[in-house]
Amino acid sequence: MATASPSPERDSGAQNIEVDYVISYTIPPSPPTETAEAEASFISLIESLSATGLATEVRPGRTPSSLLVFVKLDSEKLLKDQVYRYRVQDWLYGVRTAAPNPSHSPLTEYFASEPVTEAERLRLAYLLITKPKNEGGAGITPKVGVWRFVSSVFPLHDRKFNSEWLKEWSTKYVLDEQDLTKIRDKFGERVAFYFAFLQSYFQFLVFPAAFGAAAWLVLGGFSWFYAAVNCLWSVVFFEHWKMKEADLAVQWGVKGVSKIQLPRSQFKFEREDVDPVTGEIVKYFSPFRRLARQALVVPFAAACVVVLGGLIVGCFAIEIFINEVYAGPFKGYLTFLPTVLLTIFNPTFTTLLTRLAERLTEWENYETVDAHQASFVQKIFVINFITSYLGIFLTAFVYVPFGKILVPYLDVFAVTAQKFTTEGKPLPTQAWQINPDRLKKQVIYFTVTAQVVNFATEVIVPFAKRKVFKTVEKVQTELAEKNNDGTAVVKIQDAPDEAKFLKRVRDEAELSQYDVTIDYREMVIQFGYLSLFSVVWPLTACSFLVNNWIEARSDAMKIAANSQRPIPWRADSIGPWLDSLGFLSWLGSVTSAALVFLFNRTKDGGGPPDGSPWDITGWALLVAILFSEHLYLVVQHVVRGVIQKMDSPGLQKERAERFKMRKQLFERMVQQEVSGEEKIPERSKKESVESGRFWGRQGPAGAAETIAIGRALIRQAVDAGEKNQTKVARD
Amino acid sequence: MATASPSPERDSGAQNIEVDYVISYTIPPSPPTETAEAEASFISLIESLSATGLATEVRPGRTPSSLLVFVKLDSEKLLKDQVYRYRVQDWLYGVRTAAPNPSHSPLTEYFASEPVTEAERLRLAYLLITKPKNEGGAGITPKVGVWRFVSSVFPLHDRKFNSEWLKEWSTKYVLDEQDLTKIRDKFGERVAFYFAFLQSYFQFLVFPAAFGAAAWLVLGGFSWFYAAVNCLWSVVFFEHWKMKEADLAVQWGVKGVSKIQLPRSQFKFEREDVDPVTGEIVKYFSPFRRLARQALVVPFAAACVVVLGGLIVGCFAIEIFINEVYAGPFKGYLTFLPTVLLTIFNPTFTTLLTRLAERLTEWENYETVDAHQASFVQKIFVINFITSYLGIFLTAFVYVPFGKILVPYLDVFAVTAQKFTTEGKPLPTQAWQINPDRLKKQVIYFTVTAQVVNFATEVIVPFAKRKVFKTVEKVQTELAEKNNDGTAVVKIQDAPDEAKFLKRVRDEAELSQYDVTIDYREMVIQFGYLSLFSVVWPLTACSFLVNNWIEARSDAMKIAANSQRPIPWRADSIGPWLDSLGFLSWLGSVTSAALVFLFNRTKDGGGPPDGSPWDITGWALLVAILFSEHLYLVVQHVVRGVIQKMDSPGLQKERAERFKMRKQLFERMVQQEVSGEEKIPERSKKESVESGRFWGRQGPAGAAETIAIGRALIRQAVDAGEKNQTKVARD
Repeated sequence: MATASPSPERDSGAQNIEVDYVISYTIPPSPPTETAEAEASFISLIESLSATGLATEVRPGRTPSSLLVFVKLDSEKLLKDQVYRYRVQDWLYGVRTAAPNPSHSPLTEYFASEPVTEAERLRLAYLLITKPKNEGGAGITPKVGVWRFVSSVFPLHDRKFNSEWLKEWSTKYVLDEQDLTKIRDKFGERVAFYFAFLQSYFQFLVFPAAFGAAAWLVLGGFSWFYAAVNCLWSVVFFEHWKMKEADLAVQWGVKGVSKIQLPRSQFKFEREDVDPVTGEIVKYFSPFRRLARQALVVPFAAACVVVLGGLIVGCFAIEIFINEVYAGPFKGYLTFLPTVLLTIFNPTFTTLLTRLAERLTEWENYETVDAHQASFVQKIFVINFITSYLGIFLTAFVYVPFGKILVPYLDVFAVTAQKFTTEGKPLPTQAWQINPDRLKKQVIYFTVTAQVVNFATEVIVPFAKRKVFKTVEKVQTELAEKNNDGTAVVKIQDAPDEAKFLKRVRDEAELSQYDVTIDYREMVIQFGYLSLFSVVWPLTACSFLVNNWIEARSDAMKIAANSQRPIPWRADSIGPWLDSLGFLSWLGSVTSAALVFLFNRTKDGGGPPDGSPWDITGWALLVAILFSEHLYLVVQHVVRGVIQKMDSPGLQKERAERFKMRKQLFERMVQQEVSGEEKIPERSKKESVESGRFWGRQGPAGAAETIAIGRALIRQAVDAGEKNQTKVARD
Repeated sequence: MATASPSPERDSGAQNIEVDYVISYTIPPSPPTETAEAEASFISLIESLSATGLATEVRPGRTPSSLLVFVKLDSEKLLKDQVYRYRVQDWLYGVRTAAPNPSHSPLTEYFASEPVTEAERLRLAYLLITKPKNEGGAGITPKVGVWRFVSSVFPLHDRKFNSEWLKEWSTKYVLDEQDLTKIRDKFGERVAFYFAFLQSYFQFLVFPAAFGAAAWLVLGGFSWFYAAVNCLWSVVFFEHWKMKEADLAVQWGVKGVSKIQLPRSQFKFEREDVDPVTGEIVKYFSPFRRLARQALVVPFAAACVVVLGGLIVGCFAIEIFINEVYAGPFKGYLTFLPTVLLTIFNPTFTTLLTRLAERLTEWENYETVDAHQASFVQKIFVINFITSYLGIFLTAFVYVPFGKILVPYLDVFAVTAQKFTTEGKPLPTQAWQINPDRLKKQVIYFTVTAQVVNFATEVIVPFAKRKVFKTVEKVQTELAEKNNDGTAVVKIQDAPDEAKFLKRVRDEAELSQYDVTIDYREMVIQFGYLSLFSVVWPLTACSFLVNNWIEARSDAMKIAANSQRPIPWRADSIGPWLDSLGFLSWLGSVTSAALVFLFNRTKDGGGPPDGSPWDITGWALLVAILFSEHLYLVVQHVVRGVIQKMDSPGLQKERAERFKMRKQLFERMVQQEVSGEEKIPERSKKESVESGRFWGRQGPAGAAETIAIGRALIRQAVDAGEKNQTKVARD
């Protein structure tokens, strides 16, 4: 029935028939108390939504234990009211230049001149669903407290737009501003900013890719010239992006929205205070208490270093021992041991630490979503920094320079291994020689292989997973139909004209939420490889250039097909990732200098680094680093100055808006006579009389008489001058 | 006649009888062409002022070759018009939260609720006098072009306020916000910010003064603990001030005024362009050309280093040679040679370089006063940095560690000197020993003696100078009266009721302009001593504490008695000096670490530094510096985070204003029905029909039926769950 459908029904499946949000509601079949609670909560859900002015419809979900509640704004009045309210707020916070001015023009006109985008409508609808009842919302907080049965609240994809989007991008080489604006109107500024960043980064990569290829051919690795150009590039990119994002924020009309903070529903307050200024009730949580909790980031970072660092160092040591020292039995198999260990434990530890980071951030108890997000991002940056870069750091700054001293300690493995061998003979080992290619191989692994693996896990795995699940489900459904028990009843309930649409909604309900953080993280870490280590292998940027063309498309695909439609939040920048970028760019100046200083001599016939702390004078290395770092800071200062001078579309827009406002206001002012008769309270009478005498001396008309008297005085001055001269001449 | 005056005339001398500005006009008595031009220019001056709506009166100046033109705003209408215009501009730039709204309330009411301060009136009057004619001003640009005969435009002091101010401050220990607000209302925010900074710095100094005294008693010099605390203090002070100044800007209603740039009349444009956005004509000067000119700051800095550095190094070398090596004749006199050389050449070179800096900045051709000022400040900071700190740097980082190597080269002086002695005998020299107290003595000199000398040159010298000039003048006048020639005629012209007043104006016309930059420079350089070198002598802050109490009063005195009343410009921060402060604070972390590392061993029995590069390992020193610097940056980050969390009066004010606005707007919105009938254009008809069917299923009332159906579905789910369980149990 639902499988073979005529064309009109296919249409209804692709369209969203005015649904703003779908609430996926889970009913636990047991224990009965939970079921009863779920039922009560469901009633209050519908009542709350309805009281807020939202229309609701309920349909069964895929499984009998889930319901789908469809929500839409019931009236245009409600929407307009919300739009107006939030635009006024924007204006108060300086986000909008022009105030929505209901007293001057009818609202219809106003909304015709500034239409409501889909993203704005959906954002406000989401706020209506989630904000507390005392602020006029329905107060639904998914997965929390009484609303723990609400498993998700999501808008429906615009299938037509999505397929056009993917088609367009897959045939396009460069994304332009219009493409970004389209994304902004559909998915909100937060997602649009990610694509804008990706696009900007992609375009900037062209230069280091070309230069890197040339450097690879001509200069080879560890060239100080490449390092300098690369650092300069990363500064220019960073500063340019900072300007670009401010500019986009102006163009998109979201400059300063980060000041309008979205309260976190999970925030727990200590007490409610009355704001001494506004008289409003505010929720209070001691910032010092929070500060104390924030201080836990230090032991957290230490834990990350110990756990992940320990794992990496351990695997590293085993790997070196097996590959370069060990020559006993099973060497062919044992070679894979460190990789296996890493593959098993790295994701496990990372997941555990990420969960710990979540808990910690939760415990820090932020009032706003942004603050929470920023704190969480900080922590996952620490984790990712270690997992991504520590291995290379070890090779470059421990293994190569100090290997000769440290490797003998690896005999501990030999001793351990010997205990398990019954013969009692010493394990056969080979003469150890440092592997000078190791660093390069590692960098290539991280910048090429890992990127491909990443793509696979991000796009292909979820796709395959869904395919498998669907097959399993189909088999199950067939089995259920055979058994002909309760589950089949639900199926029959779908009205034929809705069936297709409901099937689509059920599919979307099962998708995971899109988290832009993960995509940002990937790009920032990638930028880190380029900034920190590309001096080892200058082709790095070429690899990234190819990767990122695909990345933009696969991310689009991820949003359009593999995730629920994201809630179109606004943003005025890439947020906390900006700091991470700046940090990596700065650190690049340090590592590049160190790498060039340590490894460059290989080429000059100074002999390869041989694993002993050879004739590098510590202070020369430090001077190189200090010099490079401070040169970096100076260059950054200069580049920032230059970039700030440039004009940009956003600035032009701002200027135009301001000019328009000013013109209007002055025109209005001219029309309306500024009254001249009203006098400011007179000064003390006595002074007024005296000043009257002073100012009256040269007649009421003033100017003419002042000029006459002035000229007389000038005459006198000239005369006096002449007399003096005569006198001098006479003397 | 004018000397013995009755009481009412004394009053008229103290009051300003509505005069807003006095223009001091100089007439060159010869050559006749110049005189004629001055006369023509005078006529056009009065006409321009009059056309702008300013009333004028002319009186003779002190000498026959000068005129005083008194200017006031002729009508209240003009003033209100200007105030309204500029307040609208402020609002457009986000400086004011609330828009002046003429359509909603009569202007009288508006001006009653937001009165015009004296500073605002004077500022707008000055703008009227100076801004170009096409913007509605008189276009008078003192000392430039046709207005080269206008030697100054200045407002008159409020004598009553000034004497009360000085009296109050001299008896007060701590200045409060009210004192600052008074200054702001009289002299504008720019001057008020200086005093606010001075006061804040003074209060912050209490801590290092107390701690420094304790450290001096207990720890002595070169204590790492003192260095750490001192660095921490300077970070806290810097970050606190950044917040404080933002806060004051909000309280004073000037937050963001730095965005409203005052155009520089001296700006020379390459061509006039039409702004593509606004259609306004804008003056264009290539930013890249300016950038190229700005790059000259590098050779300029190099020149400063060579000239001033050469002088200091030379004097330093001579001093060491004479004091510590030389033992020949005239030693008693020769000791003073370096001081004499420094006293002669240092001010000369500084003046020359400052003039060069002025020229360079002029040549960089900035469009706005702020940009010009910032660039100039940057340059004089370079000059002052060298003259103030280089000597100490030399002692600490060259003389002490490398003295033994370098001093023998000083024999060049001996050889030179020998050429002038006829006897041909070698000059008697003494065995050289490094002077370990030299560094401390030098720091004490700069932080105590130099401060006292500074005070003297700043306050006592100008005062004495004026006294002397007055006496000379008096004698001259008496001589002139005896001779009874032309000059006496001018004297007689003064009307008896004006004589006292005119005398005062003539006095003020001769005073120099107050330049807040000089005062800032002094304080910033002082802060530098504390941050960079106080680890040498921890009592530094005590000296500064005493000095700055006097400094605030002497600066007040300087403004009130030794300078013309400043034009009350606005400002929203201490401007470019903030960067200098930050730089010095950061550099402090480096020098402190280096000083402690180099000199601390003296105390640990490791032997005093003896002038040879002893057993300091270079890399250990660099590690100490690197560590200290990066620790500093981390601490700064943390402190910034903590300080930003704090609530402040300015933030409260901002919140209150925003709340008020919001409340008003929402109240207005509630009164005015947001029309509900107007419909946004309907979606495509087909979809609308279908969605009607979808949304219609559960009745028009929605909620009740949705709940009923939902409950039925929940029942089914439970049943299904139970059946399944039964099934499982049956299997």
